[in-house]
Amino acid sequence: MERIPILRMGPTLLVTIQVDMQDQTAMTLQEDLAAKIADTGANGVMIDISALEIVDSFVGRMLSSISGIARILSADTVVVGMQPAVAITLVELGLSLTGVRTALNVERGMQLLDRIRQENALEP
Amino acid sequence: MERIPILRMGPTLLVTIQVDMQDQTAMTLQEDLAAKIADTGANGVMIDISALEIVDSFVGRMLSSISGIARILSADTVVVGMQPAVAITLVELGLSLTGVRTALNVERGMQLLDRIRQENALEP
Repeated sequence: MERIPILRMGPTLLVTIQVDMQDQTAMTLQEDLAAKIADTGANGVMIDISALEIVDSFVGRMLSSISGIARILSADTVVVGMQPAVAITLVELGLSLTGVRTALNVERGMQLLDRIRQENALEP
Repeated sequence: MERIPILRMGPTLLVTIQVDMQDQTAMTLQEDLAAKIADTGANGVMIDISALEIVDSFVGRMLSSISGIARILSADTVVVGMQPAVAITLVELGLSLTGVRTALNVERGMQLLDRIRQENALEP
């Protein structure tokens, strides 16, 4: 079975999605990611979808759901690398990535996560 | 056709190999990586193979060859995340990853690349 690797980079976990997501792959990714956040105490998750040429409602829901799970485990999620055509299709189809933050690429995503960390640190 | 995404993180390009490499995928990866090094001026390449359960002589040669191409374009390559069983098999089969540096995980790989950069900077 396909298993998507989760790379740790300091306080951030990085996931690169390269394969078409099937139910089982998506489920395993959610479980692995939740376990890894708990294990490492990571407070940021970055999901790179630059290899995906299609983001349908299944993948959209999966991204929202990962983001929600991470949020409960006090980690913020940023989806990066979305192809322009994918963004257009998402809007045309009326699919909103509820609760999912996006950034253009990994570097901007890292900056966004740093900013979120600073904001969180300021909260009482 | 499968295309393996190459993520830029500052001066380092990160590649996560998740699929079994076919001739065409490997060829495309080499070309994409060479183009990306030239485009970005990156001086480090990190290849994560934690998802690979088998590294045969084809993949071994591909890693050596990527490392050689990157070297010519003045970038250093580090292979990270090799599973222990893969390391054992490589040695048992007598496959040496010629010219390929390895590190346990992405974080150690980043440290190694930083160290290599400092050494390179010291050279006359």
